[in-house]
Amino acid sequence: MLNDKARIAVLVSGGGTNLQALIDAQASGVLKSGEIVFVVSNKPDAYALQRARRAGIETTVITGSRTTFESALISTLDRHEIDVIILAGFMKILSADVVSHYPGRIINVHPALIPSFCGEGFYGLKVHEAALARGVKVTGATVHIVNEIADGGPILLQKAVEVYPDDTPETLQKRVMEKAEWILLPRAAEMLSKQIVLEKEKQYD
Amino acid sequence: MLNDKARIAVLVSGGGTNLQALIDAQASGVLKSGEIVFVVSNKPDAYALQRARRAGIETTVITGSRTTFESALISTLDRHEIDVIILAGFMKILSADVVSHYPGRIINVHPALIPSFCGEGFYGLKVHEAALARGVKVTGATVHIVNEIADGGPILLQKAVEVYPDDTPETLQKRVMEKAEWILLPRAAEMLSKQIVLEKEKQYD
Repeated sequence: MLNDKARIAVLVSGGGTNLQALIDAQASGVLKSGEIVFVVSNKPDAYALQRARRAGIETTVITGSRTTFESALISTLDRHEIDVIILAGFMKILSADVVSHYPGRIINVHPALIPSFCGEGFYGLKVHEAALARGVKVTGATVHIVNEIADGGPILLQKAVEVYPDDTPETLQKRVMEKAEWILLPRAAEMLSKQIVLEKEKQYD
Repeated sequence: MLNDKARIAVLVSGGGTNLQALIDAQASGVLKSGEIVFVVSNKPDAYALQRARRAGIETTVITGSRTTFESALISTLDRHEIDVIILAGFMKILSADVVSHYPGRIINVHPALIPSFCGEGFYGLKVHEAALARGVKVTGATVHIVNEIADGGPILLQKAVEVYPDDTPETLQKRVMEKAEWILLPRAAEMLSKQIVLEKEKQYD
C-alpha cells in the first residue's frame, strides 16, 4: 500500500475558486500525496459542483437541518473512506460531533491573518469589511486545522497580502484569494496528505 | 517659514534601537521633513540617552508618579515647541491628558500586526511570546497614531515578517525589529512630519 494517496473530500457552498485551485494543484503536481475523490455541497446550485464534475470528481449535495446534514455528511464521508476534509468556502460551521470524528483531519482557509478578524461572525466579505474598517495595511490568509473553537485550531500556513488605499471589500477579497488562499490551500492539502500517507506507511511497516 | 521642519521629540525607556533608526534616517535623508530635537527618557540609565547625546540631541530624564511625570512631560514638550512625539520603545502608557494635548501628533510602534496581539498587557517580549504560543506563521509591526485606546489609534504603516519554526521570543523580536520596526518608524515619522509642514505652510498662505 506504499503508493496509496490520501483520499480528500472538499466541502463547498459557492463558486468554488478554492476547489479549482486544488484541482489545478493536482494537475500540476503541487498536490501529489492526496487525491480529491469527492466534493460535497450544502447548496444544490453551487457553481463549485460544475467545476468538480468537469474534473471528473464525484459530487453530492446534502441539505437539511444541522443534525440531518451532519449525520448524512459523516456517513457519506466514512463510506468514501475520506482521510482529509478541506473546507473551501464552505459557509457552515461544523459541530464538535463532526470535528471530533475527524480529529486533525479537517482544514479550513480563513481570509485574514488569524488571530485578526476571525471567530464567529467573521466570514466571507465581512472579514474584509472589518479589515478595511480598522484600517490595516496588511492582511492575508490562514490555513488551519479545524477544532472545536471557530478559527481556533492550529495554524498550518499563513501569507500576508498588502491592502491598497482604494480597496473595497470586494477588491481586497479578490486579492487575498489570488495572492494567498489559492496558493496556501493546495500546499496545506499536500502537507496534511503527506503526513497521512507517512502514518499509513508506518502502520504497514 | 517654508523651509521649517517639524520638531520631533522621541520618548524612550531602554536600548534605543528605534531611536537609532530615526537618527540614521535623518542622516540618510529618509527623514527630511522633521528633525529630532529632543529625547525624553523615563529611565535615567537608558542606553538610548547615550545614543541621543552621541548624535548631538538634547536629552532629559523625567521620573516620578504618573501625574508628576505627565505634567513635567507636557510642560517640557511645550517649551520645546514639539510638533511630533514618537514613542520608541517607551514602556509607559500615556494617559488621555497627554494624548488629548497632542491630538494626532503622537505615534507608536507596536511589534505585531494590529489587531493581533495588542492592547493592554501586550508589550515587549510578551507580544512575541503570545504570537509563538498561537503558532502564527506571519507577524510584523505596526506604526499607529496614539489615541485614548491602547493600540487602538489609526494605523499609519504595517509590515509583515515571517515566523521561523525554531524561533524563540528573542529571535522573533530581533527579526521584527530589523525587518519591520526600524524601517516603518522613520517612514511614519517622515509622513507625519511632512503633513505638519504642509499644514504650517497653509497657515502662512
